[in-house]
Amino acid sequence: MNPNALRDKVAIIGMGCTQFGALQDKSFAEQGLEAVNEALADAGIEKDRIEAAWLGTFDPNVGGSFPGYAGDFVADILGMPGLPVTRVTNYCATGMDAMRNAAISVAAGLYDVVLVLGNEKMRDVASRDSLIRQVVTTGHPLVQKGLSAPGLFGLMARRHMAEFGTTREDLARVAVKNHYNGARHPKAMFQKEISLETALNAPMISEPLGLYDCCPTSDGAAAAILCRADLAAELTDAYILIEAIEMATVTGGRYGRRNESLIGFEATQLAAKRAYAAAGIEEPIRAIDVAEVHDCFTITEILNYEDLGFVPKGQGAAFIREGRSSLEGDLPVNPSGGLKCFGHPIGASGVRMTYVIYEQLLGRAGNTQAPVNKNGRGLVHNLGGPGSVCVVGLYHRP
Amino acid sequence: MNPNALRDKVAIIGMGCTQFGALQDKSFAEQGLEAVNEALADAGIEKDRIEAAWLGTFDPNVGGSFPGYAGDFVADILGMPGLPVTRVTNYCATGMDAMRNAAISVAAGLYDVVLVLGNEKMRDVASRDSLIRQVVTTGHPLVQKGLSAPGLFGLMARRHMAEFGTTREDLARVAVKNHYNGARHPKAMFQKEISLETALNAPMISEPLGLYDCCPTSDGAAAAILCRADLAAELTDAYILIEAIEMATVTGGRYGRRNESLIGFEATQLAAKRAYAAAGIEEPIRAIDVAEVHDCFTITEILNYEDLGFVPKGQGAAFIREGRSSLEGDLPVNPSGGLKCFGHPIGASGVRMTYVIYEQLLGRAGNTQAPVNKNGRGLVHNLGGPGSVCVVGLYHRP
Repeated sequence: MNPNALRDKVAIIGMGCTQFGALQDKSFAEQGLEAVNEALADAGIEKDRIEAAWLGTFDPNVGGSFPGYAGDFVADILGMPGLPVTRVTNYCATGMDAMRNAAISVAAGLYDVVLVLGNEKMRDVASRDSLIRQVVTTGHPLVQKGLSAPGLFGLMARRHMAEFGTTREDLARVAVKNHYNGARHPKAMFQKEISLETALNAPMISEPLGLYDCCPTSDGAAAAILCRADLAAELTDAYILIEAIEMATVTGGRYGRRNESLIGFEATQLAAKRAYAAAGIEEPIRAIDVAEVHDCFTITEILNYEDLGFVPKGQGAAFIREGRSSLEGDLPVNPSGGLKCFGHPIGASGVRMTYVIYEQLLGRAGNTQAPVNKNGRGLVHNLGGPGSVCVVGLYHRP
Repeated sequence: MNPNALRDKVAIIGMGCTQFGALQDKSFAEQGLEAVNEALADAGIEKDRIEAAWLGTFDPNVGGSFPGYAGDFVADILGMPGLPVTRVTNYCATGMDAMRNAAISVAAGLYDVVLVLGNEKMRDVASRDSLIRQVVTTGHPLVQKGLSAPGLFGLMARRHMAEFGTTREDLARVAVKNHYNGARHPKAMFQKEISLETALNAPMISEPLGLYDCCPTSDGAAAAILCRADLAAELTDAYILIEAIEMATVTGGRYGRRNESLIGFEATQLAAKRAYAAAGIEEPIRAIDVAEVHDCFTITEILNYEDLGFVPKGQGAAFIREGRSSLEGDLPVNPSGGLKCFGHPIGASGVRMTYVIYEQLLGRAGNTQAPVNKNGRGLVHNLGGPGSVCVVGLYHRP
């Protein structure tokens, strides 16, 4: 194993992202093609330069995404018969695992230029075909036992409160920050600030998580053009480099529950440790300028602060309380508004987070721009499962 | 693009395969673990050597395969929390695309030893959740128009008959050959010879395809241990090398039907052309000793002879009629019995075909052994879609 095999071998030379939301005026194909075309235009290359592609779509049975069942969908929308396209799917970490496999192929020297498309539609759903319904009828063991995602993350919030004194106000502060940021990103699903009172008084979903503690279900697509780092400067003026993309898949508790903690995600801790080792990072809080992390619920963002090593375990609530993750803080987290406000079309999210970090590192983030002058380095954290798969990506300016 | 990037960089040092069939006494986890354990024992290594894995499972909603929704299933059954596991899915070519992505990661120098598991259950199906039913309700455009797989391949058979004089007897000869071979492979689903009359008099499924022209739906799993070629000799006595694994994804006809032929698969032609170029092969019939090809229907095997360049277009029927693809022929095809007799658990098939070629090249194929003395080279052909995805792999003895 050589964790440095990816380091600075692969560049991101173009990215695209649709508006996220309930895109009932766009088909799965239309939203996917929009993201790809934006990425191609951004890179300034013709589609014929693309030699292979990876599609990240989590569940084509949810409704509207059926064409994403396999890779031929991408060859179809591009009108590029013959393009090799792999579909990757790995719960909510699907997007970053597609990025990972694509980056590996470039690092292997097999391809010079490849495409990654994260694409998902979740809103065109007849309720009898809904994801939750399918999961319940076909068998995820946690959900079968009555543990929906809000139920499970609610339990973790309770445990964090009992263990470390985290409060509902701390959770609400994550929502307020992410709504503040999302209100400033033109492609976010929710572009509206909220107050602490609004968050605290919202309808309860699963104690202690209220409506504003939960990310929405969304439609959306995001695309990336990757190329050999040594070709990047020939192809484009502005690009970033991949330092590391590391994944950890932790058992889902199917065949005997391990003695897992409810106050953190081992998958995040392992993936982060590997990514930091590959990039030579010892103090994440100093080494990273800006981060997009997987805030499917507000408690998840607090757990992420700790699991990613921004602060020690138990100090996540203080990190938000003291404003350290705000746009003006010492490590701005989710300048885009996060899953909470940008939206969470499952297979798209990891690629969308990379899009946001790409914008940030290139200084193109407009009203959501964080200072990125410490190291010119950004982090993406994509979690799935719940908690059974994590991919951490590190990117930096050349 | 460097199509030689894989060539001889990756070895297969161990393989395993379950009995194929209606495995109602085994769960998805049990059959998957059985294949992995056999591969580990064959390689003579401990599971802790595995640094990453790729899971090929096509459709976890079919019934019984739900744990294969994402990679954590593999970490679960191995009891290896932290293992990075990607799930790949690409219609019936899922297994070989998983092999391809795994091989790329080793060629990239990222991992030394990786696992590929193809795993699918198709028999534990309530009819309302059946694959065909889901496809019909959720939208594959061909199937929605009434074209089931037998319907589409039946049309192709008719076209081949009209164009080249291929007969129902020629199709039946493929079934007779594959049943002859399958009867000799201890892990095949159908281990029974049939006569030409039996094939010709069987119930009609979709004109001109009768029951014996169609592969069955099956449960099964197959696994491969891949490692850096330069480590192979340290780890094991017997191994084979990957020369090339090339994929082509042709548009599925969703957004405007291209002017495609019904007498062949462009995906196969393209993937084969790329693989032959990567391996420096000019005359496949001379360069390849043994092949496992995707005979989902008997007509498909005849089309494959032509699309893979074993004979010119239109001469596929003569190839079976003259016995050239039999165990004693000049290029034995499907010595295992093929999908037709070995069975076709979708995500497992590509890995299972590789298992058979591995057996053949190592001289371990017992009653199904073909002579492999020309070049010590075998071919695997895995098709999906229908016809929209193809992966061709070339393997040889070191």
